[in-house]
Amino acid sequence: MFAPTYLDWNATTPLDAVVREAMLPWLDGRFGNASSRHEYGRQARAAIDEARARVAAAVGAHPTEVVFTSGGSEANNLFIKGAAALMKPGLVAVSAIEHPCVREPARQLRRQGWTLREIAVDAEGRIDDADWQATMAARPALVSVMLANNETGVLQDIDALAVQTRAAGAWMHTDAVQALGKISVDFRALGVHALTLSAHKIGGPLGAGALVLDKRVELAPLIAGGGQERGLRSGTENVAAIVGFGVACERAIARQAEEATRLAALRDELEAALRAHDVTVFSAAARRLPNTVFFAVDGIDGETLVAKLDRAGFACASGSACSSANPEPSHTLLAMGVAPDTARGAVRVSLGRDTTAGDLERFRTCFAGTLEELKNLTAMAV
Amino acid sequence: MFAPTYLDWNATTPLDAVVREAMLPWLDGRFGNASSRHEYGRQARAAIDEARARVAAAVGAHPTEVVFTSGGSEANNLFIKGAAALMKPGLVAVSAIEHPCVREPARQLRRQGWTLREIAVDAEGRIDDADWQATMAARPALVSVMLANNETGVLQDIDALAVQTRAAGAWMHTDAVQALGKISVDFRALGVHALTLSAHKIGGPLGAGALVLDKRVELAPLIAGGGQERGLRSGTENVAAIVGFGVACERAIARQAEEATRLAALRDELEAALRAHDVTVFSAAARRLPNTVFFAVDGIDGETLVAKLDRAGFACASGSACSSANPEPSHTLLAMGVAPDTARGAVRVSLGRDTTAGDLERFRTCFAGTLEELKNLTAMAV
Ligand SMILES: Cc1ncc(COP(=O)(O)O)c(C=O)c1O
Ligand SMILES: Cc1ncc(COP(=O)(O)O)c(C=O)c1O
Repeated sequence: MFAPTYLDWNATTPLDAVVREAMLPWLDGRFGNASSRHEYGRQARAAIDEARARVAAAVGAHPTEVVFTSGGSEANNLFIKGAAALMKPGLVAVSAIEHPCVREPARQLRRQGWTLREIAVDAEGRIDDADWQATMAARPALVSVMLANNETGVLQDIDALAVQTRAAGAWMHTDAVQALGKISVDFRALGVHALTLSAHKIGGPLGAGALVLDKRVELAPLIAGGGQERGLRSGTENVAAIVGFGVACERAIARQAEEATRLAALRDELEAALRAHDVTVFSAAARRLPNTVFFAVDGIDGETLVAKLDRAGFACASGSACSSANPEPSHTLLAMGVAPDTARGAVRVSLGRDTTAGDLERFRTCFAGTLEELKNLTAMAV
Repeated sequence: MFAPTYLDWNATTPLDAVVREAMLPWLDGRFGNASSRHEYGRQARAAIDEARARVAAAVGAHPTEVVFTSGGSEANNLFIKGAAALMKPGLVAVSAIEHPCVREPARQLRRQGWTLREIAVDAEGRIDDADWQATMAARPALVSVMLANNETGVLQDIDALAVQTRAAGAWMHTDAVQALGKISVDFRALGVHALTLSAHKIGGPLGAGALVLDKRVELAPLIAGGGQERGLRSGTENVAAIVGFGVACERAIARQAEEATRLAALRDELEAALRAHDVTVFSAAARRLPNTVFFAVDGIDGETLVAKLDRAGFACASGSACSSANPEPSHTLLAMGVAPDTARGAVRVSLGRDTTAGDLERFRTCFAGTLEELKNLTAMAV
């Protein structure tokens, strides 16, 4: 099978082999509805309990604080809509660079009488201090700011923001989907009321995510029914995916520090090489994830570049994968004040546990050649 | 490994071996985010398209009418809440025997000003004609009646109900989770606006379900975000589960007619044997699924019986698996006018593709012995 070099680890990750092994029995003889009161059901329940402990441990939370969902998008929607459903309509504030699965549910709240404020970011993609203070002064009821951005990799000072949000009397949520496994994530240290995780970004399977939730926050369930997950998320539990999520957490945490050092070195080398080609690296001055390079080449279209790299055997992204269905330039870059023309040139290379120095060496060579080609084409077209 | 005889196929089913084979590559080298515009992403997208065609074919729908979800509970919530979100509050009518994942979202709508009517059923568990006519006269906006009940197996005349619901100007939804693969299910012939399916009830994996939806119905997404599934269900698609769902549909449909005949014969034999023990079989006079026997023994507690059968190596259910977390007697039986004391005796045996005549012979012997034991204990206690 043709296997291009995968440089799109922020979009999704291959399943860790150890995770796969842990899942396989649950796709075989160890099936069972965890609500069933017989041997099959009890085994499924025990496996879910074990996974819950693993996920909780990965972020320093208590197992009873973990609510399993089908993924990160569901967890984000559960928090935003679930909290709002039990409150009087007020102000919901989310950063201007949130993933659509935070921004869209926040926008949906407007139908129920809520006001939405999108908190501005500076040119590097960090929360803008003045707009943040103004947001706090406006007395929000719900605040959501992502820990790490999926496109730029920029990290926010969630702990400091959470202190202020709490002081303002609001619930504070953070989307930690891109952070887990790449930096250390501690639910208590962050001081948030709720935090979102997703298994498939850390070597786990698609189909599992979690909302880690302070027990004091009351939520209405998004999916109501049989009453699973303490009534917060009904539906027969996806045992295999949850088991995989648990093991993936354990694995990702165990190698996090070492991988962060290794990937940051590879990333720095890659960025240095890219800069030799008139490349702008976005958010280069901000604290960022160790694995993410988001950049643009002046005058070159990102889509075209990514398509050419794809044909040459390198899988990377233009804009964020989740919104690749829509051809708008990255809303993260626009929020940072990047000109639409420059934003349209954006390419994201994201590294992961299988990425080697050799991969990036081959990538750099290919990139240089592809760029040469495109520049010649552009020159001819003029 | 200890493998009790599985007689709880309405709770969940073991993964069909052919389905598993189809899924495994997607848990290995063929990972990929279906929104990604590179080789991995395109392969994932193509696999989802193929699965969508298979699921659509299984119920005679068009592929563009299939909205993938994480399971049946989500699909039911998506329809009820998604449709209501775009309408003025009005009357929502659901049968009194719906699965909690229809009943609970309908109840949640009351918070937004909706009125809920639970449509009565007769002593056999069929929609009560007089209450149905009264419901229609009350001009509902949303109606949901399940095609097959998970506990009794009773089938409703959805096609006739849909004609009247349409005439009354309402959207008609049916939960077909327990029907698929057991009886023939045809979206057009049923005449409903929307229909719910779940993969894990038909030999497919946990983690996939679908709402089959008439394009004329507008829904607000439950999970908003990246815009997947025509904007109706955001979140990175669970490719392996969706692929498995597609293959499971194909397999279940191919053997449906033959299996229905085989299981109905086994079921009839089992019921005849049970009746020798003072057993009441619920809904025996109604049109039912071929695989489900729901019964009670006078004076014997269902939980206790199921626990004893479990220790003897037979996995069956007391009440519905999904609500086994709560010890209330079956709401389906209560709605049928069964006395709470009798309802507490309920046991469900549900058969599936691996169930053999030998399994049921051994079950009958064990059942007779267990019953004897319990009756002696009860006699002693008096
Ligand atoms: C920051 C961020 N949040 C949420 C999500 C959504 O997670 P999931 O794909 O599990 O729904 C993603 C990726 O898709 C993401 O990058
Ligand atoms: C009739 C019925 N509807 C819906 C569901 C829920 O489906 P899922 O387990 O896929 O969420 C079930 C079983 O759990 C069911 O029996």
